[in-house]
Amino acid sequence: MSEKMWGGRFTAGTDSLVERFTSSIAVDRRLYAEDIRGSMAHARMLGRVGVLTAAEVETICSGLQRIGQEIADGQFAYSDSLEDIHMHIESRLIALIGDTGKKLHTGRSRNDQVATDMRLYTRGAIDHLLALLRALQGVFVDLAEREVDTILPGLTHLQVAQPVTFGHHCMAYVEMFRRDAERLRDARKRVNVLPLGAAALAGTTFPIDRWDVARELGFDHVAENSLDAVSDRDFLLETLAALSLIAMHLSRLAEELIYWMSAALAFIDLPDAFCTGSSIMPQKKNPDVAELIRGKSGKVMGQLTALLVLMKGQALAYNRDNQEDKSIFFTALDEIEASLQLLTRMLPGLQTRPARMRAEAEKGFATATDLADYLVRKGVPFRDAHAVVGRAVRLAQERGIGLEALPLAELQALSPAIADDVFQVLTLEGSVAARKHLGGTAPEQVRAAIARARQRLAGEGA
Amino acid sequence: MSEKMWGGRFTAGTDSLVERFTSSIAVDRRLYAEDIRGSMAHARMLGRVGVLTAAEVETICSGLQRIGQEIADGQFAYSDSLEDIHMHIESRLIALIGDTGKKLHTGRSRNDQVATDMRLYTRGAIDHLLALLRALQGVFVDLAEREVDTILPGLTHLQVAQPVTFGHHCMAYVEMFRRDAERLRDARKRVNVLPLGAAALAGTTFPIDRWDVARELGFDHVAENSLDAVSDRDFLLETLAALSLIAMHLSRLAEELIYWMSAALAFIDLPDAFCTGSSIMPQKKNPDVAELIRGKSGKVMGQLTALLVLMKGQALAYNRDNQEDKSIFFTALDEIEASLQLLTRMLPGLQTRPARMRAEAEKGFATATDLADYLVRKGVPFRDAHAVVGRAVRLAQERGIGLEALPLAELQALSPAIADDVFQVLTLEGSVAARKHLGGTAPEQVRAAIARARQRLAGEGA
Amino acid sequence: MSEKMWGGRFTAGTDSLVERFTSSIAVDRRLYAEDIRGSMAHARMLGRVGVLTAAEVETICSGLQRIGQEIADGQFAYSDSLEDIHMHIESRLIALIGDTGKKLHTGRSRNDQVATDMRLYTRGAIDHLLALLRALQGVFVDLAEREVDTILPGLTHLQVAQPVTFGHHCMAYVEMFRRDAERLRDARKRVNVLPLGAAALAGTTFPIDRWDVARELGFDHVAENSLDAVSDRDFLLETLAALSLIAMHLSRLAEELIYWMSAALAFIDLPDAFCTGSSIMPQKKNPDVAELIRGKSGKVMGQLTALLVLMKGQALAYNRDNQEDKSIFFTALDEIEASLQLLTRMLPGLQTRPARMRAEAEKGFATATDLADYLVRKGVPFRDAHAVVGRAVRLAQERGIGLEALPLAELQALSPAIADDVFQVLTLEGSVAARKHLGGTAPEQVRAAIARARQRLAGEGA
Amino acid sequence: MSEKMWGGRFTAGTDSLVERFTSSIAVDRRLYAEDIRGSMAHARMLGRVGVLTAAEVETICSGLQRIGQEIADGQFAYSDSLEDIHMHIESRLIALIGDTGKKLHTGRSRNDQVATDMRLYTRGAIDHLLALLRALQGVFVDLAEREVDTILPGLTHLQVAQPVTFGHHCMAYVEMFRRDAERLRDARKRVNVLPLGAAALAGTTFPIDRWDVARELGFDHVAENSLDAVSDRDFLLETLAALSLIAMHLSRLAEELIYWMSAALAFIDLPDAFCTGSSIMPQKKNPDVAELIRGKSGKVMGQLTALLVLMKGQALAYNRDNQEDKSIFFTALDEIEASLQLLTRMLPGLQTRPARMRAEAEKGFATATDLADYLVRKGVPFRDAHAVVGRAVRLAQERGIGLEALPLAELQALSPAIADDVFQVLTLEGSVAARKHLGGTAPEQVRAAIARARQRLAGEGA
Repeated sequence: MSEKMWGGRFTAGTDSLVERFTSSIAVDRRLYAEDIRGSMAHARMLGRVGVLTAAEVETICSGLQRIGQEIADGQFAYSDSLEDIHMHIESRLIALIGDTGKKLHTGRSRNDQVATDMRLYTRGAIDHLLALLRALQGVFVDLAEREVDTILPGLTHLQVAQPVTFGHHCMAYVEMFRRDAERLRDARKRVNVLPLGAAALAGTTFPIDRWDVARELGFDHVAENSLDAVSDRDFLLETLAALSLIAMHLSRLAEELIYWMSAALAFIDLPDAFCTGSSIMPQKKNPDVAELIRGKSGKVMGQLTALLVLMKGQALAYNRDNQEDKSIFFTALDEIEASLQLLTRMLPGLQTRPARMRAEAEKGFATATDLADYLVRKGVPFRDAHAVVGRAVRLAQERGIGLEALPLAELQALSPAIADDVFQVLTLEGSVAARKHLGGTAPEQVRAAIARARQRLAGEGA
Repeated sequence: MSEKMWGGRFTAGTDSLVERFTSSIAVDRRLYAEDIRGSMAHARMLGRVGVLTAAEVETICSGLQRIGQEIADGQFAYSDSLEDIHMHIESRLIALIGDTGKKLHTGRSRNDQVATDMRLYTRGAIDHLLALLRALQGVFVDLAEREVDTILPGLTHLQVAQPVTFGHHCMAYVEMFRRDAERLRDARKRVNVLPLGAAALAGTTFPIDRWDVARELGFDHVAENSLDAVSDRDFLLETLAALSLIAMHLSRLAEELIYWMSAALAFIDLPDAFCTGSSIMPQKKNPDVAELIRGKSGKVMGQLTALLVLMKGQALAYNRDNQEDKSIFFTALDEIEASLQLLTRMLPGLQTRPARMRAEAEKGFATATDLADYLVRKGVPFRDAHAVVGRAVRLAQERGIGLEALPLAELQALSPAIADDVFQVLTLEGSVAARKHLGGTAPEQVRAAIARARQRLAGEGA
Repeated sequence: MSEKMWGGRFTAGTDSLVERFTSSIAVDRRLYAEDIRGSMAHARMLGRVGVLTAAEVETICSGLQRIGQEIADGQFAYSDSLEDIHMHIESRLIALIGDTGKKLHTGRSRNDQVATDMRLYTRGAIDHLLALLRALQGVFVDLAEREVDTILPGLTHLQVAQPVTFGHHCMAYVEMFRRDAERLRDARKRVNVLPLGAAALAGTTFPIDRWDVARELGFDHVAENSLDAVSDRDFLLETLAALSLIAMHLSRLAEELIYWMSAALAFIDLPDAFCTGSSIMPQKKNPDVAELIRGKSGKVMGQLTALLVLMKGQALAYNRDNQEDKSIFFTALDEIEASLQLLTRMLPGLQTRPARMRAEAEKGFATATDLADYLVRKGVPFRDAHAVVGRAVRLAQERGIGLEALPLAELQALSPAIADDVFQVLTLEGSVAARKHLGGTAPEQVRAAIARARQRLAGEGA
Repeated sequence: MSEKMWGGRFTAGTDSLVERFTSSIAVDRRLYAEDIRGSMAHARMLGRVGVLTAAEVETICSGLQRIGQEIADGQFAYSDSLEDIHMHIESRLIALIGDTGKKLHTGRSRNDQVATDMRLYTRGAIDHLLALLRALQGVFVDLAEREVDTILPGLTHLQVAQPVTFGHHCMAYVEMFRRDAERLRDARKRVNVLPLGAAALAGTTFPIDRWDVARELGFDHVAENSLDAVSDRDFLLETLAALSLIAMHLSRLAEELIYWMSAALAFIDLPDAFCTGSSIMPQKKNPDVAELIRGKSGKVMGQLTALLVLMKGQALAYNRDNQEDKSIFFTALDEIEASLQLLTRMLPGLQTRPARMRAEAEKGFATATDLADYLVRKGVPFRDAHAVVGRAVRLAQERGIGLEALPLAELQALSPAIADDVFQVLTLEGSVAARKHLGGTAPEQVRAAIARARQRLAGEGA
């Protein structure tokens, strides 16, 4: 006969392979603190509404506290036959305090219990991610300030387009990670809702006070439908979607770091401490951290697919499929946390090579648009100006020189609107400085953006 | 030589297969209204800052208006060689109003133009989705009210767990679609940001006033970094992630409708007008709409994968890969809109079969938990009560009867705490009514939830 | 200064967080046997072509053997600072045998080494999967034989369509897993190709004999392009795609088991040893194994997405992103292996409930098509026959009876072609027996299919 | 009352929105030729087994032929109310030939009919893909021959690793596309199986001869289980997985083309006819075709996710979800076909810039491994040799020179094993030529690989 806590109606014990297959303790043990915290709040509430006596509550809470300590100290024994962290803790509680321990599960079910644990855990994870994103934004703002005047060839289609500054480029990543943080803050609102009280799926017959538990656990809301409360994993999916967007940004950043580090560009150098060498080629210095971040980003996206697929086929309410949500979510979370930490540590040591950047910007006719804009200011319609500059570029290309090296007479042959004031618009610094509206690459605008970001980040850190 | 607007430096024309391959007009023509609206705002702003004369602005705006009318009337000719909707409109404008038309593109690029169009379009799409979600919630609230007392066997693991009401189950979907709407509203904040002014990637040398354009187009913010403004597709991804969660909810709902319609359950019937028959089996009445919704939900999730993958590999700033974002996004959007519309139309005609639901609830020992709770109230610790009930279930199962049909004496043999007041907790109605806390399935609670939902929906519709 | 094996040109040590981030030893230690086997083959080949002396080969091979034993015995120390299993083994080898150990890496690189290890491992995994699939097919064939005459309502759209037999249904899964096995066998051909000799990416300057190594390691082919050999992970992706199709089949099977176990259907029962109970509802017997299999199937599909994404963005040749291929692949592999094992163990204990199946088949007008076919044989064109039967079904439905209970006169009113021989085609057994062509559900055909399957499986097991 | 062919038991017509939602004619009309071909084979078989008369078969086949002509000529009217291509053709047939047309559907169902159509279509698509892959391989072989001696810096981690030849790099893609073709050929075996005869799901009561139909339609096998035959979409998934691997290869190729075209590298130039310009930057020449191919590759992978998800949740047998398989599959197929065609047309015009490639190879200490191998040949253990070269690289780097420019005396200070024969191993040509084993980058090996590929491709084309 079954010895499981749920085994009353069973006539045979569980197959041992099944125990291993269905056990989640290896994954969900990291929820132990949340589980204990939730159980204590539940017990205290049962006390306040009269289902437990004050003494019972006290006994249960001390027992739970002791178990928390045992786990933190590594003095706790795990076993597949106890299935999950909830059963481990409850079973240990009964061993420690006897029959009173059997009363803890009154008015709840593992279905609402695990949902509560995961929401507490996810809320904590979001708060940690927010701190990591703030730190990484800070690193980019510092870099932007340091490189506010450094000319970088701005690319579209990986072709040189127009000069920008390295500082402006850094601030683009500040914008991305800022949106990521906003998304997580929005997701947090929907994470921070108490499912406890939904019991198995229908609620309970005990006179529970769900707002009491919510207040103690710091939840902003109480889930308003018990069926939904135990079935819902939107909060994980929404967080995972936000993680996938972070992964996408990290992948783009990694792509750029790898590209800038390539020998042909040599726009930047990364500290030795963050690169690795080759087992066969002694000259190699590889941007492994960036490559791994890029690789891990695909993994995060795969987990989003996995969880969407897992959820979509389930009729309400709770199904055991949901057990897999944890390993999926933790995989993604761990990769993103590690990647953010690594970048925050590595990027302050990034060195730019301004001469290389400038050389590439000069090679690519980066100020061609400035010439077109110049013609427009002289009265040429933009489309005609664009065509004139196209011909000038072809001319310069045939001679293997830059636009600024074309003689004035030849430029004038292309368009009589060109005068000798043209050459000042063809410099990289002139081009950059001229884009001085909100959002433009002019150093004065980037400085303003840096100041705004610093102020915002200070506010968020407060 | 190239005749393309961008063809100045090119010595050879475009390969015709390439024209077809790179053309996006078949997909992006649906952006025409947004493109025209954005161009008019851009032109007016250029007028206000003195880059265009008032007369030029007037000419451009009338031209654009006329083009909008031509397209709306189906009087507009499309061609792959003009690539996209932007070039189609600009080229037609020049044909209509001559050289002044060539001035429209001053101070902008297709990169910020298409980003602006897509943000306007997505904002409109979100507003439409919000209305659809509100309507569907309304349908579920009506159903919930109609079926507030209808007993339904609540399932976990697709096994009968505890009785709930059909109305309570309907309200679970209201919660899901409510969260979907909240997510879209949150996403909308990040959609509603003006990229125009970023030009190709670095901003422009013209003295543009971006807030002026933002106000005219109803944007809440101006993108603060030009590189980011042309590279960013977070707004599409976040919306697509929200669509994927809607798809997941729709798939779960479809799964339930199909299951409930199956002959074995026959819990519901759907109107003939929303079902189809078989080309070979004359007796069939298939819930095709639900099956297609389930199938389409996988398609939506695939599009999320597609766009994440598309974005993750790109170095900044704009790359042509982005052109594909539109067909991906529209595919998902169209499927979700159609699914929401269909459900809103179909579900009011859903008929429940209360007798079938009740029969299944009775078969499944649905009130076993109530018996355990009863024992707890008599002083038995929950875990011991759970074990007693397990034995009672086994006994009843062996005899092929329900718990309520076990003689009192036999129940008392299992636990002396049982008295003859036990039978009232074993009724389905008693079980449901007892779960009367916030979020529980008791009809009084469901009525309260309905009232809250009606009030909220009324507010959203205002 | 760096103490890494590759650290010659580095002036600073590796950051400790980086060591942890870039280390793969926790994941790739399961490749140790393959790594040692590959190294021994490499060393022997270097001996045969004269790069190492016979004594050196002997020393290296004994050293490697001893290391293999140490690892198998759990007597091996792992450390993140040694990065991966290759460096662990090589470093231990040098510690054990001194300078000769430093010669092992001659003419190879970690790039071709890890690719070789993974191909050996994947080949072994495929062989194991083939055995598991064969065993599971065997279980289904046995079930099919036991239930070859058991009537089951065949469903389309989850609606009763036509009667089939449970045995026929079992054989459908045999077909699926047979295709899965064929796919794996086809993939194996492309897995079983030796990359060693590609070195870092270009080959080596030593006079290596790659076919010699291939023969020793049992590879059928030698990779013909060194750049491709170190960049290629098609063999993992193709295997992972095959795993995803297995996962899809397992999910469909799980879906059916859960559905058949539901109280409303009660078509089957699964052994207690493979089900679990509820922490709150004592009456529950949940098909958790099936639910977990369904949940894990989504996880497997997510890993396919992850690896496709990981590979698609990489320029040739080897990039560090690839390190992540292992945790992705192993996650999917482990879930599929465990799922196949569990099902093979659980399904022999599946009990059918023929009375319940028959009852549902009778309820659903399952023989309506037989009536239409009957009319066709009497000369009515199929489309007209279909319409007649549709009307008959409506009539029977209105009366709440089956087709076979309609009086002959009323049937004849619908079509004069109907005679009193009609009733024999309306029985479930008659319907099933009449579908007696190749692939049909007639027991004689299913018996023939079982015999063919047994013969095939016996051949595969030989 | 319903006017649908399946409408006999329905009392209400179909909702018009439902008609549009459930109609698949816009997507499945491209199956018309396969549908007609399959119907003719079915009719002829019905004739041979005596279900139809010879005259009926003749009438049906001429009718179908005429319909095929009408569709090919664009003289065919489509309507959502006729749902799909099968109903369109059957309904037109009845209109053309009267009651005999109503007999065509005898002994089959739309379930096995659509499966047959899709298998015929997929088989044709695979044959077309094989021709496209062969053509593209031919282009790469030609390029490889042209550039067999062109030095290219071989990269790992996007860092210069060792010199290879451009020809060798081209042959890496030949290997990839060769595997893709092999995978498609393997998939074709499982595609080319006849489902017809499975009818709705259970087979039919008519004495059909399935092998007769299979032979006429060129199928190698007959599906052996009717339930599986109508439920199975493995053949689409396996083909889609193969398409996803092609997409992955195309994306890697696109990534390299874009990278090589970047101004900083300028390793290659692509013909003007395959590039586009900028609407604002007149100097731009963008590798749009490559960027779109990269973008489309993500789309293909998304479709694989979509179809896996669609299939995994379905209980047997046919469900309407499956209708969506077509738009998903066609989306992926069309993108891959167009991408392969474009590349085959574009790549012959690719121009290499050998001087630029050589310059980058020289900058990157590409022959460092050759120096290490040299030391090994002088008796230094590989790991020690690796360390010596690491120090040499650091020395050269500090001076800003190549390894070959270090004075002999300084090299000898690092290792006494170095003699003045060292300088010949430090040349790029020497390095490349030394890797002369099977699969190595030495031109003689690449020539041999080219010869093997030409012979193989000629055989495949035969």
